[in-house]
This record gives sequence, C-alpha cells and structure tokens, in this order.
Amino acid sequence: MPQDLRGLLEQGQLANAYAAAQQAPESTQLSRDGLVLLPPISNAPKIICLGLNYYAHAAESGHDKPEFPTLFMRGNTSLVGSGQPIIRPQCSIKLDYEAELVAVVGKRAKHVKAENALEYIAGYSVFNDGSIRDYQKRTSQWTLGKNFDSTGGFGPDFVTADELPAGAEGLKIQSRLNGEVVQDSSTDKMIFNVAETVEILTECLTLEPGDVLVMGTPSGVGLARTPPLWMKDGDTVEVEIEGIGILTNPIVDEIID
Amino acid sequence: MPQDLRGLLEQGQLANAYAAAQQAPESTQLSRDGLVLLPPISNAPKIICLGLNYYAHAAESGHDKPEFPTLFMRGNTSLVGSGQPIIRPQCSIKLDYEAELVAVVGKRAKHVKAENALEYIAGYSVFNDGSIRDYQKRTSQWTLGKNFDSTGGFGPDFVTADELPAGAEGLKIQSRLNGEVVQDSSTDKMIFNVAETVEILTECLTLEPGDVLVMGTPSGVGLARTPPLWMKDGDTVEVEIEGIGILTNPIVDEIID
Repeated sequence: MPQDLRGLLEQGQLANAYAAAQQAPESTQLSRDGLVLLPPISNAPKIICLGLNYYAHAAESGHDKPEFPTLFMRGNTSLVGSGQPIIRPQCSIKLDYEAELVAVVGKRAKHVKAENALEYIAGYSVFNDGSIRDYQKRTSQWTLGKNFDSTGGFGPDFVTADELPAGAEGLKIQSRLNGEVVQDSSTDKMIFNVAETVEILTECLTLEPGDVLVMGTPSGVGLARTPPLWMKDGDTVEVEIEGIGILTNPIVDEIID
Repeated sequence: MPQDLRGLLEQGQLANAYAAAQQAPESTQLSRDGLVLLPPISNAPKIICLGLNYYAHAAESGHDKPEFPTLFMRGNTSLVGSGQPIIRPQCSIKLDYEAELVAVVGKRAKHVKAENALEYIAGYSVFNDGSIRDYQKRTSQWTLGKNFDSTGGFGPDFVTADELPAGAEGLKIQSRLNGEVVQDSSTDKMIFNVAETVEILTECLTLEPGDVLVMGTPSGVGLARTPPLWMKDGDTVEVEIEGIGILTNPIVDEIID
C-alpha cells in the first residue's frame, strides 16, 4: 500500500487504508504527542490558491468583489506541518497569517460541472497561507511572497469529505495570534465555493489526485490593520476550522548559516 | 539508476548516466523519428517562470523596465513535449506563443549568491510558454492563463551547462509560426540573467533538483500585434535557441468528449 496520502489517492486506496487502520491493534497506534507532523500532503502535484475569495477580505485589501477567482500557486517547499515553525525570513518583517480551508483532489478531473464537482474532492484540511507582504506586492504577481520556505502551515488533520457538510460549507473558520482571535468567519462566506472552483479550474486544466486547493482567507489579516500586525519570533499562530481541526505553528526567525 | 532526469539530478547520477549512454552499443540506440517525446522533465517539483524579462517585450506589453523579476508558476499538467500538439482550448481563441530559455536546477540551493549560482544549474532547454491571453488577463494574477493543459511546449533537448556559454548567455532565440519568424532576439537581452535569478529566488525559497526556471520571452508575441496574432488549429510553432535545439509543436483544437 502507498505510504502517503497522494499515493493512496492515486491508487484509489484511501478507503482500504482507513479500514486497515481501524482494524490495527492498539499496540501499533502512536500518540500524536511524540511525533513530528508533516503536512497531510508534501508532494502535491499542484497547490492552487484563491485570493480575495471572501468579500470582507477583498474589501479590506482595496479590491472590488471578484467576478472570477484570482489564482496563484505555491510550491511544496513553502509548506510546513502543524507544530513545526513558520519561519520569518531575515529579508522581511512583513510575515502575515491567512486562515484557509483546503480541499484535496481525490480523482483526475477535467471539464467537470459544479453539480458533480464534489465527487472529485477526497477531503478537507486547514491551511495558513503565510505571506511575506512586501515581496508579494513587489511586482504585479504575488508568487514570490507566497512561496517563502516554511511559511505555509498545512494540517494536521485530513478529514474525508463524507464526514463534513457538502463542500465543507458553513464551518466556522478562525485564526488566533498568541490566543487572540484575529480572523473569525464561516466557510459559507466564500465567494467561489469548492464546487464552483473545480468547475472553473477544470475548464482549463486537469486536476490530479493529491492536488491541493487553498480556498482563500476571511478578513482580519495583519496587512489590513492600522498599524499592521506582523507575526514575529516567539509568537504562536493557530488556525481552526470547525469539524476539521486546529493548525498550530510557532513563529521562529530564520537563521542563515 | 533513476529512469528520469529529475531522479538523475536528485541522486547526482547525471554524469554516470551520460557515460553509460556513451558506452552503450549502437544496437541499443533508438532513432528519434519513431518516438513520442516527453518534456525533459515532466515531474518538476516547481516550474518558476519570469514575466517581462526582456525590455522590448515589457515595453510592447505596456510595462516599464522591471526592477525586480515578475514571477508566476506553471504546473506539470500544462507541459507538452516537442512534436506533440499544443492544444487550443474550446473556451478561448487567444492562444499565444512565447519563446523562452529554460534553466534546470541540478542541486538544492538556498541563499546562493549570483557569483556561485551557475554551479546549481545542471543544463538548459527550450520552452514555449503558451498563454491563453484572455484568461491570463481576467484577474490581476496570470496563473490560469499560463496553466491550460498542453500549452507549455518543453524540449526536446536538454543540454548540460558545460556545453554552453556561462548562463546560456548570448544565444540567438527565435520563434517561428508556420515558418515565419515572429520573435528574434538573444538571451543576452534578458534583464535578470540566470545567475541573478537564482540569487533572488534563493533568498526566499529552496530550489531543488529538477526545478525548472523559465526565463521570459523577447518581443514579438501575438498579443502585442495589430491585429493580434493567435495560433490556431493546423498551425506549427517552433522555438529555436542556438546551441540547444528546436522545439516544434503543431496546434490542434481541443476536442471535449
């Protein structure tokens, strides 16, 4: 059986792996406490992110309500598991948080209509789309500011779609910095929901098993505050989505050898 | 020995594979004629593309001379090998060509200075950064218009760095549509060269073996012409870079099942 979630999805083995885990003797179960957690997927074929997908966040960022999804991509080198540090790079202090829902693609999808799109989503997780704002805004394209090493918190839980409302809608989504609530919304405030996003994407491109869709963030980001609120060494940031889990990352300054 | 270029680079086996191929008996050599060619890498960890990296192209696109690289990413699902069709999607006629140099990362790189950066480049190839212009311009972020299936021609040749001038500079780069020259420049016109690009990227992120850097296009794209020049079913597009090779792709309309 494949050793990771992408492999299980590619080979249609997720249900078998779950059944095997259910039947495993208690002696083979590990306590989460002693483990270093990786992201649920750290070898995604594609990580496609939506910007400005909550109206209140689009507004706080000075944008109109989008009529089409604003899309960018992250690479796997930008990801970090829950419990592991998000790194504040030496070249910038403008490290911001963004609480986001993740939808994980379970099956190859092309030209899928919204009414069937959720059949292609294997499950959901939690993301912190950590952003280096000055690099994000340095040119018209946000890519570099969204791709610093170890800035994208992802996990710890992967919850299969059958355990959540359709499209993971109507779930509370919150981020907390050092315990203080800084973003507080619901996934039903997404402008483009998961099904609509799959339809729009698959008109253009093939989604593959293990592709990660990062669904955009509510209002309350540090950039939009007066004064701006940046994460710094010693902070702890959490993102919680109801029914999925809590993603926790300490913030640690980069050390350059 | 690994079966693909990414694997050879990850395991530092490229020179051994080359030596083995040199010693292989003639009876084991295949003629290129009978083969379906894949891209030199079709499982790149990251495909990072520069926009507006030739001044004349930035100008024809209505932009000032960039002071920092404009970056976006492509997914592997957008790639297509030489000889295989670039697909014009049903949803748009605005399929454009972009001749580009590719630099392939050979070794893990972080915080690399320009003066040492070329040590991390294994070799070079040819790219056609095929773009669906209306989708590229639909929001502020270009990602979707750069990620249609089978629009990014890549290959056929991978030339190791030792066989080319440092940084692959000073090479003629040309694209031809149905035999007519439509872009004609030199790689020494790049605003950010390969070494500078590696320094800028690795201040922020880790480059890994098999990562693909797509270095931007000269002037002459179809979008900037009056009237615009779009590629259509039955066309043939070629991109040639001196000392590397010729990438050839027929254009074929998408058929939706």
